[in-house]
Amino acid sequence: MLSMVRLGASGRQTGRRTVATVVSGNKTSKLVRERLKQEVQQMKQQVPGFRPGLVVLQVGDREDSNLYISMKLKAAAQIGISANHVRLPKTATEEEVLDNIESINQNPSVHGLIVQLPLDSVHPMDTEIVTNTVAPQKDVDGLTCINAGMLSRGNLGSCFIPCTPNGCMTLIRSTGVSVAGKHAVVIGRSKIVGAPMHDLLLWNHATVTSCHSKTQDLPEQVGRADILVVGAGKAEMVRGEWVKEGSVVIDCGINHIPDDTKDSGMRVVGDIHYQSANQRAAFITPVPGGVGPMTVAMLMENTVQSAWRFLQQQKLLSGR
Amino acid sequence: MLSMVRLGASGRQTGRRTVATVVSGNKTSKLVRERLKQEVQQMKQQVPGFRPGLVVLQVGDREDSNLYISMKLKAAAQIGISANHVRLPKTATEEEVLDNIESINQNPSVHGLIVQLPLDSVHPMDTEIVTNTVAPQKDVDGLTCINAGMLSRGNLGSCFIPCTPNGCMTLIRSTGVSVAGKHAVVIGRSKIVGAPMHDLLLWNHATVTSCHSKTQDLPEQVGRADILVVGAGKAEMVRGEWVKEGSVVIDCGINHIPDDTKDSGMRVVGDIHYQSANQRAAFITPVPGGVGPMTVAMLMENTVQSAWRFLQQQKLLSGR
Repeated sequence: MLSMVRLGASGRQTGRRTVATVVSGNKTSKLVRERLKQEVQQMKQQVPGFRPGLVVLQVGDREDSNLYISMKLKAAAQIGISANHVRLPKTATEEEVLDNIESINQNPSVHGLIVQLPLDSVHPMDTEIVTNTVAPQKDVDGLTCINAGMLSRGNLGSCFIPCTPNGCMTLIRSTGVSVAGKHAVVIGRSKIVGAPMHDLLLWNHATVTSCHSKTQDLPEQVGRADILVVGAGKAEMVRGEWVKEGSVVIDCGINHIPDDTKDSGMRVVGDIHYQSANQRAAFITPVPGGVGPMTVAMLMENTVQSAWRFLQQQKLLSGR
Repeated sequence: MLSMVRLGASGRQTGRRTVATVVSGNKTSKLVRERLKQEVQQMKQQVPGFRPGLVVLQVGDREDSNLYISMKLKAAAQIGISANHVRLPKTATEEEVLDNIESINQNPSVHGLIVQLPLDSVHPMDTEIVTNTVAPQKDVDGLTCINAGMLSRGNLGSCFIPCTPNGCMTLIRSTGVSVAGKHAVVIGRSKIVGAPMHDLLLWNHATVTSCHSKTQDLPEQVGRADILVVGAGKAEMVRGEWVKEGSVVIDCGINHIPDDTKDSGMRVVGDIHYQSANQRAAFITPVPGGVGPMTVAMLMENTVQSAWRFLQQQKLLSGR
């Protein structure tokens, strides 16, 4: 059934089969964080006392949000970013949330501002309005309309790229496979994964096909992908048999499925059936340990980038 | 070579061959303009004295721009839109242009503002800055980053759809062919045609492939398109042999090529080789008379839509 193909040095051979090289987000995100730490050191040398500033604004007290925020704060601290957690109570109104955002927008020591979603308030909140109140030049999650508009129209130098697609792109680059002219397929069209992933691949000059829940011939579309990125939110929906031989396969899914062999009774899987896809792909991201750790690293990357832009605008840098 | 296929009543039979039904932009744009005229009448009945207002801002005196502007002003007048042509001299600075835009942004009797491109000034002008100074709620060309961001992320109800893609979509709908679940291919990724066309097809639930100058297997990509939209700016680059049997083919190209049989020595052709493509497509737009006349009609559509939104926000309407 399985063929001995391609890869040469890059694949790991098990008996007669060649399996895909694992693209590790753990390793790559560590390298990114180390580089960012050095960049922050450089900033301090050039502008004594300066530190990039990040604010995470939270409304309410969701446990999952608390966990994600603590990961972000920890990563920031390790890199040397000054990170603050602003907590508003569940009873905060939309107006109060907007006032807080606007006040942080005005604060010159803050270079990145993210609003932890979902908003956990007893009052009605328009997430679109809240998200779009963040100043575009501090929108390190890349979720404002203005950022999306710049990314979608190819103005990549001025915008912030949303963290998950940016992480996927960094992992694709880490394989050494060139993107320009390749046929990329993206499954999913969400604001934080699929839609910006399309844009990013397109403006890196891939021919890109956007698939989604209404796509009628998903196996055929997947079968044509030199580069496949899946952000569909459905456990193991992409089967290995669909995957093109020798392709790069990136899995953004994080799904919990029952597993009696685990103490928790659950196991985390991606949107791709890993054990069959890794028989055909040349490169594949695992879940966990693939795209996941990259997302936080890319948030740090955007924050440091925003700080560099700030220093440049303030003309505080010599010759960068 | 050519097969007798599909189409039934919709194709025109010539001998043993079935050729594509011509999708006429002349006819459809006329219907759109008639409907808009009625809508403007309705507005006047509901709010006596009210007229939608459009401003076309021109910098300099390019002859091609003068021609396009006169077409827009004429179409507006026929519909009952109050259209004004603001001309700034070639000597206008960027600051003066921005000041003019901001003053028009503030004028409540103007519901649509377009800046005629290219800007014809002796001074340096940043077209991005000029375009993005137009208030998003008056940006009836749909060229601001905010509009692009909303369109690219599927927020179609709040944005203005750029006129050429909107015209293409209207022509596709006029065929009766449903878009959802179809495989659409867009050639070109410009801000005014290709990129927003991708978005519009995607959020009308097609599976969409974006092709461009770096695409390596264009004939194969075109061959899979149930719906093909070409905005590449290259005369007759898409060959009929590439086109999928029974597809909908939309040509945004306007190219002038030498033709000794014409008095002018020139002839206008699209980006698709019409005489071969119409042997395979089920529906095809001609050039001229296809997408071209739709663009001005869609500018009028957006202006009228903007006026309706204004009236709604001002609570001047009863029960619409």
